[in-house]
Amino acid sequence: MSEHLLGQPHHDGSAFYVDDPAPALGAEVTLRVHIPHGPDGTPGADQVVARAVRDGEPALTAGTRDAVDDAGTWWRVAVRADNPVTAYRFLLAGGSGGYRWLNGTGTHPHDVTDAADFRLLVGGSPPDWVHDQVAYQVFPDRFAPSGTARVTPSWAKPAAWGDTVVHSGPDVPRQWYGGDLDGVAQHLDHLTALGATLLYLTPFFEARSNHRYDAVSFDRVDPVLGGDEGLARLLDAAHARGIRVVGDLTLNHTGVAHEWFTRALADPASEEAGFYRFGAEPGKYESWLGEPSLPKLDHTSVGLRRRLYEGPESVVARWLGAGLDGWRIDVANMTGRLGADDLTHEVARSVRRTLTGARADAWLLAEHGHDASLDLRGDGWHGTMDYAGFTRPLWSWLNGGSPAGPGEAHGLQFLGLPVALPVTTGWASVATMRQVHAAMPWAAWVASTSHLDTHDTPRLRTVVGGGIDGWVDVAGRGRGRHLAGLALQMTMPGVPSVFMGDELGLTGLDGEHSRTPFPWDRRGEWDGATFDAYRRWTRLRHDCVALRRGGLRWVHAGDDSITFLREHPEQRVLVHVARADHPPVRLPLAALGLTSAAQPTTLVGDDVIGTDGFLVLPSAGPAAHAWALRPGGRPR
Amino acid sequence: MSEHLLGQPHHDGSAFYVDDPAPALGAEVTLRVHIPHGPDGTPGADQVVARAVRDGEPALTAGTRDAVDDAGTWWRVAVRADNPVTAYRFLLAGGSGGYRWLNGTGTHPHDVTDAADFRLLVGGSPPDWVHDQVAYQVFPDRFAPSGTARVTPSWAKPAAWGDTVVHSGPDVPRQWYGGDLDGVAQHLDHLTALGATLLYLTPFFEARSNHRYDAVSFDRVDPVLGGDEGLARLLDAAHARGIRVVGDLTLNHTGVAHEWFTRALADPASEEAGFYRFGAEPGKYESWLGEPSLPKLDHTSVGLRRRLYEGPESVVARWLGAGLDGWRIDVANMTGRLGADDLTHEVARSVRRTLTGARADAWLLAEHGHDASLDLRGDGWHGTMDYAGFTRPLWSWLNGGSPAGPGEAHGLQFLGLPVALPVTTGWASVATMRQVHAAMPWAAWVASTSHLDTHDTPRLRTVVGGGIDGWVDVAGRGRGRHLAGLALQMTMPGVPSVFMGDELGLTGLDGEHSRTPFPWDRRGEWDGATFDAYRRWTRLRHDCVALRRGGLRWVHAGDDSITFLREHPEQRVLVHVARADHPPVRLPLAALGLTSAAQPTTLVGDDVIGTDGFLVLPSAGPAAHAWALRPGGRPR
Repeated sequence: MSEHLLGQPHHDGSAFYVDDPAPALGAEVTLRVHIPHGPDGTPGADQVVARAVRDGEPALTAGTRDAVDDAGTWWRVAVRADNPVTAYRFLLAGGSGGYRWLNGTGTHPHDVTDAADFRLLVGGSPPDWVHDQVAYQVFPDRFAPSGTARVTPSWAKPAAWGDTVVHSGPDVPRQWYGGDLDGVAQHLDHLTALGATLLYLTPFFEARSNHRYDAVSFDRVDPVLGGDEGLARLLDAAHARGIRVVGDLTLNHTGVAHEWFTRALADPASEEAGFYRFGAEPGKYESWLGEPSLPKLDHTSVGLRRRLYEGPESVVARWLGAGLDGWRIDVANMTGRLGADDLTHEVARSVRRTLTGARADAWLLAEHGHDASLDLRGDGWHGTMDYAGFTRPLWSWLNGGSPAGPGEAHGLQFLGLPVALPVTTGWASVATMRQVHAAMPWAAWVASTSHLDTHDTPRLRTVVGGGIDGWVDVAGRGRGRHLAGLALQMTMPGVPSVFMGDELGLTGLDGEHSRTPFPWDRRGEWDGATFDAYRRWTRLRHDCVALRRGGLRWVHAGDDSITFLREHPEQRVLVHVARADHPPVRLPLAALGLTSAAQPTTLVGDDVIGTDGFLVLPSAGPAAHAWALRPGGRPR
Repeated sequence: MSEHLLGQPHHDGSAFYVDDPAPALGAEVTLRVHIPHGPDGTPGADQVVARAVRDGEPALTAGTRDAVDDAGTWWRVAVRADNPVTAYRFLLAGGSGGYRWLNGTGTHPHDVTDAADFRLLVGGSPPDWVHDQVAYQVFPDRFAPSGTARVTPSWAKPAAWGDTVVHSGPDVPRQWYGGDLDGVAQHLDHLTALGATLLYLTPFFEARSNHRYDAVSFDRVDPVLGGDEGLARLLDAAHARGIRVVGDLTLNHTGVAHEWFTRALADPASEEAGFYRFGAEPGKYESWLGEPSLPKLDHTSVGLRRRLYEGPESVVARWLGAGLDGWRIDVANMTGRLGADDLTHEVARSVRRTLTGARADAWLLAEHGHDASLDLRGDGWHGTMDYAGFTRPLWSWLNGGSPAGPGEAHGLQFLGLPVALPVTTGWASVATMRQVHAAMPWAAWVASTSHLDTHDTPRLRTVVGGGIDGWVDVAGRGRGRHLAGLALQMTMPGVPSVFMGDELGLTGLDGEHSRTPFPWDRRGEWDGATFDAYRRWTRLRHDCVALRRGGLRWVHAGDDSITFLREHPEQRVLVHVARADHPPVRLPLAALGLTSAAQPTTLVGDDVIGTDGFLVLPSAGPAAHAWALRPGGRPR
């Protein structure tokens, strides 16, 4: 299946199509819609009407023609942002396309629900700087030891830096390599070399495991990581280089050894006893997915809320005051949800209020591995870790199947599903990406992170057949598809987040296996071609405003290739990514707003070929290409 | 475009597929999925996994094979109803279909969002009796005068029963025909003859218009309708015949002459002044869509909530105590919504609590003309007036276009959209129906009303080309398509609601024009064929449990025909409705679970023809047919 999408009407939430992406309540916002001409050059529509839901009832506004060019007609229509979230879509009528609706999943020749409406947020937009970041994810125990001598914590089984990672059995959380925050500070050059501008640290609070998602306290940085002073030194060093730092906070549960839980157990009359959900039976309590070492917090407790996230003395506020640039909230999708209670929205709003109060330009990112759309309504989390809209469709498209594909019989499950990794077409993956992103406001998508993999997953290099040994894919078997994925990560909306070591070509079978100590001492074995590609694509992202702040317009989706435009008033970039050789994709010059095939400038990859009024895109794969196009004919 | 859907895996929220549609919190519910065999007879799937969102996180449960027959495999899987709303879908893998998701809109060969998940409600199910109703909508001023002399109200311009309806200009709300509640009571035989079991009355509270959506009081029935005693007599008479009665209550606004508003204007310090939203400027206040005669209520007022719907003294409770069987809430979609405030969910929950407290088996129906899905979460409105999922797609499919189709150049707009009525295919209308109904819990769909038209719309008879004169379509030009629509209304899930006079073949150009005084005195001019069809289809609905309580499985959708199965453990009914002649639809006997073409029993319409293992459905149109099939092979 293959689909030419360039001929479809388009609108998205970017500055190319929305003149004020962060309006005040009641402000009028001008929206633009591009309607390509029909096959015979006739107008695609005679009427364009915006339908915005206002106070629960659709408000309709007729659009006007703004400009007509070879590619199509630009329409302009104003809507009022009368509610905190204004959902809107467009009705097109007449012309070559007839009656149809345009929403975030494209055009539909029949009535639709509001689920894929575009959404304007009042006051919900992320800090401006978020658009321009490339993040680098560090798991502190495994990135770099500073050499400072540390007392071995009671829970730990020390490992030497070159030891094999234990990824099953009871020693998984105990294997302690001894990376620390000063070690991270010593290696910030690596981030800069890679083009990363933001450091996302998994938890640094004192805990009883190497991952530290089982906090013992939210009041102090783990002494084995260097303590509060270690964090302060890292923040200073990072900020001095222009690198921002985001911390990782669990609001859903604590560790069983947390000082609050200890007090709660010791004294059922204590305030802390109200922080957890104890059952009628002594010693029974709710916990994270039934894991007793992680007792679940009860957000109906006023005292808990005050300690965690209400007011300037709260955990959320204090560490922003100490210099953090934002928080990633662990298992945000479960936080505040249990049985008949669903307090997640209230928690998110409260965290956001405190965060913004502590620091107006801080970023609030939620871990939500699934459909986060109803949790992304502007007043809570800014964005989510975009597993659903990026990682999953990417893996589905790039893995080669098992065992028949280019990968091996790795037996990988699909991010928690008890089935083998599906192999889908580019078309199917694009369908998922469109559906997931249509369900969230544009402002939430661009404030979300896109991951090839994380500390919780196999590495993409393994997923695409690069090996299962936990070491660098030296033979480069998975390199082509890995770098195809990288190109998508670096050219699509959302903040690209690189998991430490991906840039070396590391493999990993599961989340624990992927937590390889960073091999500083084996630099000769790094996959240089992969590292170079990371540098090239991050540089391109920083160089191209269209990649950082442009809209996303799908151009073509085939079995083996995906093509799209990033559009910004100053620049347009055409991206073509292939997982394999494929029939050439031919794009009409006029539909791209070009008059000559010489106009695209190659940024990465091969040149396009011009023939008979068409651009012919390179057809070999795996490969990834990007071309700069002159700015589109959008009226100003 | 035409699509055979019988070969698709299926599940829905009915008793055929869900063993407990109203589980207690934490109860385990057995779900069934039918997976048709692939084209070569191989299993359609090797794995079926239920994915239910539990406390924000997907919980996966593997299904087991229950039975295999010629048509396919029955799978069984249990999920726990751990939250008030449990959203679930199914992952299918292996077999002839490969990796795909089954949700309320069908199967998808790629990941999807949760928007079309099936939804189990805890405690949210409608009263059991709602499933078995056929409603009849009466606009009291226009149905029947009892002959009791009434004082002409100050706002009224009296009209004789035979006068033409005024449907534009300032006299529209003032034209007063003088129908009253005793008149309704005198004509309940008509409802019974028609097969109606429920009377839905538009507002009866004292007001200053013929429609009474501008209440002057919620404490007394309008004296010109017969007052409180008139209502009591009607309720007694209706209940004596087994007819239930639902009232119509506006919580969004009152009339400008309401005693509360009068007091609010007179005394800004009064409690009532807090019931409305006055601006800074004297005399300025928020109102319904800017219409100053309908000041908008402010549901942040504790006093207002208490008077309207909190506690046994409230309006909601008192009139249920007086004998009403439920409420229809006017403009529920706007109620509690204004600017930064969205209290709609809180209002709905509070109304529901009071309603259920006053009368455990009362029905709460919301007017929401659009996507009501986020307002239908089990704890508020039971259902909605299903314009979005029934009326709109029906009109799109059955109208003949203007002016080229079988209708005339009537210039009708499409339910509030500033475009001509679109003419869509059966496939497109089915796509809308599926999408809208997938977004609501099954329990909300079956507690919603399906309308061919209402007092707020043109009559369907006009929409399909039956004329524009406001009188009976004597020539029967629109009869065929009108009755095709009727067949869908009477055979699909949802409570069919007949707008008074539709059964006579009346036409009407807009909502006001459709409010024709019921022509009791011109019985000879009623369209007898239409009336007979109403009697036949309502009788069929009452006779067939599958039509009242069965699931809905789409079988085929063509340009000009729509075919589906209603499935119940005791009975299955196959329905085929055509707007025009069309290519014959051929259905494999095995796929229907039949071994012989003789097995379908004709209920309405023509017989099917059996040939070579297929059923061939009648291909003439407009037409509507229903056949009884032996119960399916679902394991018990």
